[in-house]
Amino acid sequence: MEDHDNDVVMDGQEHGMAMTADGMSIVNGFMDPSILDGSLESRNGESDVGDDEEEDNIKAYAYPYDVLSRRTLPTGCCYDDRMKLHANADFGPNPHHPEDPSRIEHIMKTLKRAGLVFHGSDADLLRVMKESPTKYMWRIQARHATQEEIQTVHHPNHFKWVEDLSTMTTEQLRHLSTMMDQGRDSLYVGSLTHEAALISAGSAIETCKHVINGTVKNAFAVIRPPGHHAEYDQAMGFCLFNNVPIAAKVCQTDFPETCRKILILDWDVHHGNGIQNMFYTDPNILYISIHVYKNGEFYPGKPDNPMVPDGGIEHCGSGLGLGKNINIGWHDQGMGDGEYMAAFQKIVMPIGGEFDPDLVIISAGFDAADGDELGACFVSPACYAHMTHMLMSLAGGKVAVCLEGGYNLEAISNSALAVARTLMGEPPPRMAMPKIMPEAARLLAKVKACQAPYWECMRHGVVDVQEKQIHGSSRLHDVVRLAQKQILSDKYGMIPLYIQRDVLFKSFENQVMVTRNTHMDKKLVVIVHDPPELHAQPDPLDNSLQPHNAWVTDGVAQYIDWAISKKFGVVDINVPQYITHPEDTDAFIPGNDERAMQNQVMGLMCYIWDNYLQVYEHVDEIFLVGVGNAYLGIKVLLINRDVKSRISGVVNFVSGNLRPVRSDVDEGLSGWYKDNSRVFVAKDHACWANPDLTRKVMRRRFGTVIRSSVNGLTSMMSEHFEDVQQWILERSRHADEEHGGDTTEEDRMV
Amino acid sequence: MEDHDNDVVMDGQEHGMAMTADGMSIVNGFMDPSILDGSLESRNGESDVGDDEEEDNIKAYAYPYDVLSRRTLPTGCCYDDRMKLHANADFGPNPHHPEDPSRIEHIMKTLKRAGLVFHGSDADLLRVMKESPTKYMWRIQARHATQEEIQTVHHPNHFKWVEDLSTMTTEQLRHLSTMMDQGRDSLYVGSLTHEAALISAGSAIETCKHVINGTVKNAFAVIRPPGHHAEYDQAMGFCLFNNVPIAAKVCQTDFPETCRKILILDWDVHHGNGIQNMFYTDPNILYISIHVYKNGEFYPGKPDNPMVPDGGIEHCGSGLGLGKNINIGWHDQGMGDGEYMAAFQKIVMPIGGEFDPDLVIISAGFDAADGDELGACFVSPACYAHMTHMLMSLAGGKVAVCLEGGYNLEAISNSALAVARTLMGEPPPRMAMPKIMPEAARLLAKVKACQAPYWECMRHGVVDVQEKQIHGSSRLHDVVRLAQKQILSDKYGMIPLYIQRDVLFKSFENQVMVTRNTHMDKKLVVIVHDPPELHAQPDPLDNSLQPHNAWVTDGVAQYIDWAISKKFGVVDINVPQYITHPEDTDAFIPGNDERAMQNQVMGLMCYIWDNYLQVYEHVDEIFLVGVGNAYLGIKVLLINRDVKSRISGVVNFVSGNLRPVRSDVDEGLSGWYKDNSRVFVAKDHACWANPDLTRKVMRRRFGTVIRSSVNGLTSMMSEHFEDVQQWILERSRHADEEHGGDTTEEDRMV
Repeated sequence: MEDHDNDVVMDGQEHGMAMTADGMSIVNGFMDPSILDGSLESRNGESDVGDDEEEDNIKAYAYPYDVLSRRTLPTGCCYDDRMKLHANADFGPNPHHPEDPSRIEHIMKTLKRAGLVFHGSDADLLRVMKESPTKYMWRIQARHATQEEIQTVHHPNHFKWVEDLSTMTTEQLRHLSTMMDQGRDSLYVGSLTHEAALISAGSAIETCKHVINGTVKNAFAVIRPPGHHAEYDQAMGFCLFNNVPIAAKVCQTDFPETCRKILILDWDVHHGNGIQNMFYTDPNILYISIHVYKNGEFYPGKPDNPMVPDGGIEHCGSGLGLGKNINIGWHDQGMGDGEYMAAFQKIVMPIGGEFDPDLVIISAGFDAADGDELGACFVSPACYAHMTHMLMSLAGGKVAVCLEGGYNLEAISNSALAVARTLMGEPPPRMAMPKIMPEAARLLAKVKACQAPYWECMRHGVVDVQEKQIHGSSRLHDVVRLAQKQILSDKYGMIPLYIQRDVLFKSFENQVMVTRNTHMDKKLVVIVHDPPELHAQPDPLDNSLQPHNAWVTDGVAQYIDWAISKKFGVVDINVPQYITHPEDTDAFIPGNDERAMQNQVMGLMCYIWDNYLQVYEHVDEIFLVGVGNAYLGIKVLLINRDVKSRISGVVNFVSGNLRPVRSDVDEGLSGWYKDNSRVFVAKDHACWANPDLTRKVMRRRFGTVIRSSVNGLTSMMSEHFEDVQQWILERSRHADEEHGGDTTEEDRMV
Repeated sequence: MEDHDNDVVMDGQEHGMAMTADGMSIVNGFMDPSILDGSLESRNGESDVGDDEEEDNIKAYAYPYDVLSRRTLPTGCCYDDRMKLHANADFGPNPHHPEDPSRIEHIMKTLKRAGLVFHGSDADLLRVMKESPTKYMWRIQARHATQEEIQTVHHPNHFKWVEDLSTMTTEQLRHLSTMMDQGRDSLYVGSLTHEAALISAGSAIETCKHVINGTVKNAFAVIRPPGHHAEYDQAMGFCLFNNVPIAAKVCQTDFPETCRKILILDWDVHHGNGIQNMFYTDPNILYISIHVYKNGEFYPGKPDNPMVPDGGIEHCGSGLGLGKNINIGWHDQGMGDGEYMAAFQKIVMPIGGEFDPDLVIISAGFDAADGDELGACFVSPACYAHMTHMLMSLAGGKVAVCLEGGYNLEAISNSALAVARTLMGEPPPRMAMPKIMPEAARLLAKVKACQAPYWECMRHGVVDVQEKQIHGSSRLHDVVRLAQKQILSDKYGMIPLYIQRDVLFKSFENQVMVTRNTHMDKKLVVIVHDPPELHAQPDPLDNSLQPHNAWVTDGVAQYIDWAISKKFGVVDINVPQYITHPEDTDAFIPGNDERAMQNQVMGLMCYIWDNYLQVYEHVDEIFLVGVGNAYLGIKVLLINRDVKSRISGVVNFVSGNLRPVRSDVDEGLSGWYKDNSRVFVAKDHACWANPDLTRKVMRRRFGTVIRSSVNGLTSMMSEHFEDVQQWILERSRHADEEHGGDTTEEDRMV
């Protein structure tokens, strides 16, 4: 098993690999430190020479550094052709597998072509290495990892399982590969898998050790099979042994003084579940993973598993390892340079600096790279360079890069080249900084909140919700509605509508306010709206708000003002986004709050219709106004009750979901809706983004959709205020009439 | 004026300079690119060699970089002994000046001793330069700036003024130096000042040009006199010509294609007023200054000038230059690595990335360095290295460092060494990351808010207050009080106290609530409190609040509950931090809101006393409870009215100002206060920080001060709730009695 020669020839021409003599010269072209004697010593000694005659003037120029001149050390690179031996024994109809042996070869060729690896004669090599030791990458000799090393993080049974692959028949291996290709296992095996996996792990070990002991400035291990999905007792996700944790453990053991704390930064597009689980309680290994999470649906999430998948941001480590596990799990694919740079600037670098590691290991999958179809993200080579450059500011520059996933040969090669050049001292290339996706910005803020208990630098601007609740605080939305209620009561004499308790959430009691004697009115405006918008500039440290610097913006007020001035009766329905009344909590279906809320909104609207509006016999025209998500209430009313003949018009302001109004029972409903509505949709709404979508929302069921010239509900309501007034008055038969009831103005204004 | 030889000997032995032949060899030791022919070409050509036989397999390895292998270029350094010629002509009793000629010499010697500058024989130099071009810094030849170059940013009269210094007599120069040593001018001059200033500016120009045209990877100009205070038409602050702006302008002119946008990062501890003003409307020069501002009191602030000083964060540029001026002006001295790293991570690097400059120039004063008494900050060499390293990720690594201020010879030399080593490719050293000062964190948040209109990356988490006001929003504190009022009214039947309008702010009307028939009560609790605390987790993008995720924490409610359960009458006085009722704005004294507010609080308390409490004849015991800053109300009542005999006890909760209660008229007041009060002071209050302060607050006038075991008003009120109950009941003569009035419980609960 040991001492395989480098010119072993692969048996797998079928896999599209080109194993030529030239391929070997890539490896031979490395600068190998072992052929130079004492070169390192002489390079480090440059600053020992002092000028004695100057001692008088100069008191003390103690070096502020613990490491002398790492810049004069070369960058290391570890590669071995034998890692291509791991190949798929399943030569079935679709033998190609993304984790192809040619991945590492392609990367090495790219490094060579870019001039990072020497490719002249051996005689020239010797000369160049002596004269200019940092000009090319230095070769770090690969080796097999030992069983003992593997078992620092894996169960002996797992080692044996991998070892046994080499004794299986081709048929057995094919069968196994076919079986494991599906689901979460996602793995193929071959007769030389064990061989390659040992060298991959051994290469990671040697790479990290060389960085720690200062033979090289930093280093890149171009290795496969990858490791980060491999669990303590299980191979999965193209991974056999978990290379990076093995290397970390070995370094901690071999260099207890100089390598105690290790940061493992995993930018593979998949979550490194294996690394997380191996160090979940370890205070000295900080694992940070940036990956696509997709609410647990993205690999290696467990969609068919009731447990929360490993990659969620709430997994912060446990026991002594609390705070030493950081998951930056994107809500979706499609992330790019802006998101990754923000993750680094806002989270990785502040926490990395606070942790102050002795060594940084990058679990460097390149499947988030632009061009990788599996990852479907858009990280550019320039961005990989910038991330590498930032990490090089930690641990005195001791950075070891270990390849993980990444499947588009060009994408991984260009990305790896950018990383290698940066390691060698090339300034990161310029990069246009794209706008960051709002959802990604929110995710980063949530990660900050999750990590705030453990990291000083994350603590600013985070509210401890549990602590607030202990002090018996009120939720602001209840406070705001209470104030709104008092205004409606003081200003217009409006009163709460009685809501029968056993049918609907108690919280709704405060949410429906009506003008007095509404049953005597001929014309009514029913406004169903979201709670007022709130904006505040919180204290950057603890997010406390100075209430004089916080704003409550209520776009509905002017409409009520106007309606009352025009002698309409008014029904004001505030629909909170969540129900938080303690008595109502039993009504919740766990994990399905929104559905419960929708049912309640439907119930509320029908209840108000059945018990009040329908039986108000004087009322012969009703205008419905929907604002924000609450306009769902109008949709459900139109669909669930036959109200068309009583409704004179519908006005909606929409910044979120556009909701179709149609009915299987009443085929005329959509047409009626189209003829009797004005649906103002925010200027930046997604439906205007492409012609297909725009055509779609122009269908009858969406009503008469109008693109607003502004964004935001309050701005839209201001912008279209006059338009709406005019439209309603034109449709009203009683525009100029007084109230139908016998109350006087004085009665109404209490 | 031109072609001064390098071995000019200074006339100023008195200034502590050691001008030896050895000092010259520092300069001679430089590696000078001009003695190598074609070396740059050959270094850049390495990647042009392709392997033809591999073309088939490899499609396209286009370089993702616009610059090839900058890592193989050396770091440049520009220095010239003639810049020491600028010396003080005033040889008076105190001739030493911090901007001493030996500053640059000391830095150069340090670089040499650290091995960054070659110091062997010329023959060796040639060999080393050929073989290993990045091993040492390469010399950039200094030169005189031309009059035309100087006048790109200075008025011709100013050029002439400096030029004329060389024709003045020593006596004239001494006189001028003495005159200008004071105040904002802060300058000395000598007969060779013009000479040195021309070379300083010329060196800055050559340094930047070499970086732009790729002769060097990056470079350090060790120059003096400094430049960043020099204005268009005026020398000031040790500065004659403004070196960096001159260099920037010349580069923009000479390299219009490759050097259009320049970032000038000024980390001198003083604000670079000259640079700011020269480019205030220039969209292509982004000036970022990190400096001590101290509310405008720190140099070059203008304390005797009614104008806002230049260094305030509100100066964002104007016209086309809007957003291209960023002042990070610390509120005080004493800043260190934590604050500077945070400024870089949160502001400098995100904006730098978004600006994407063609060149970065660092105006590198080292007077914020640990050890510099003038600056009194604590930036370590390691932190300078990290800041340099971060900036090296911009502009494809094109960074030119130009010395500005910095006066402790050791501090500036160690700092400059750290910067130079980083430029040469040394990884920044490890650094413990200190906690950031709360005030500094707030300042950074404010800078973000100021810059949000101009930079996408600053836009998250910022509220546009003006826009909110346009939409007729209510301030949240009014909304919250309205809700509070309704709760007090619904739950306890409390009613607003009538406040006479012509005496006091109208806003107070809603702020005072009393239980009914208070005039019939025997015992009263008067609670004067700050508005409830608010905490929210705002949306990271626009700081909108989801009101169900915001909490209003009202520590007072439980005290009112209890007081009413124990049959006390209750007066609840809410003291807003600011008065925002529109009708009250005319009562404001501009710039003196707090004083006006204090006067109003005094007025309110005396009004309530005179018109209500004093005339309630049944009341024979009153307990006062003060919460937060509002406890000022209790202080002013005790001092301004003789109430001792009517007050049975005072309980205060203090997290801010501790207020003494004493009176020149009533000498017994402080003693009475001590005997009849419990003043709970937050655990982290400054008064516990040192024994002197603690002793001070134990004096009678501060009452019976008790250190709380917790922080925050709400937590304190919870913590000491039982203690306070017991204390009040022990002091109450009517503890077990019913209300004095004839109303029944039913009457009270309306």
